[in-house]
Amino acid sequence: MLPINLKEKFELFDEYWSPKILGEFNGQLIKIAKLKGEFVWHAHENEDELFYIVKGELEMRYRDNSVTLKAGDMHIVPKAAEHFPVAEKECWVMLIEPVGTAHTGDVVTERTKNEDQQEWI
Amino acid sequence: MLPINLKEKFELFDEYWSPKILGEFNGQLIKIAKLKGEFVWHAHENEDELFYIVKGELEMRYRDNSVTLKAGDMHIVPKAAEHFPVAEKECWVMLIEPVGTAHTGDVVTERTKNEDQQEWI
Repeated sequence: MLPINLKEKFELFDEYWSPKILGEFNGQLIKIAKLKGEFVWHAHENEDELFYIVKGELEMRYRDNSVTLKAGDMHIVPKAAEHFPVAEKECWVMLIEPVGTAHTGDVVTERTKNEDQQEWI
Repeated sequence: MLPINLKEKFELFDEYWSPKILGEFNGQLIKIAKLKGEFVWHAHENEDELFYIVKGELEMRYRDNSVTLKAGDMHIVPKAAEHFPVAEKECWVMLIEPVGTAHTGDVVTERTKNEDQQEWI
């Protein structure tokens, strides 16, 4: 029932590319993550992913275009779209995706942290 | 594909208690609204509602308690919980709820603006 303050939650951890779970509603999980550098090309076959940029800048590359997101921007990565997130400097994002969404979608790498490795904070 | 900038979208309208739709993902609609004053007691039988406060302050009253939300706070109103939003001064919120969620849930008043009256911006 308490308010969930986004910035306070971001102060609780430092790791990059390691989503933390804040809440669940309608089968969707609200997560936050700190991003820096390049991630991996991947797609989520059946799940859209909502991104909201809290701090910094994120480039979302697609196979045929890309979009640059700044603090205060939202963006939906459509299901099945191959995407590659890149943050030149540290970037804080909130993301919302369905329970059970695989972190790196259709690929598995050493960067993969699926839901059983994502802690609630 | 373009970024959706929350603050720019808020500058496009002035009415209170009149949600505008920004996007859809996984059967959920992303909406923004300006709130001021008291709304109406209502509940959504089957839908959780996510609130994120962009500016100002919102008090969410429940029948047996209440929570005060400030800019940067999130809060989930659980399905079937009767709630009564109050904003003493103008408050800007983003909310996410399933497609088809009734604005004032189980009650209909002159304040009710269901999805067919909610425009995309």
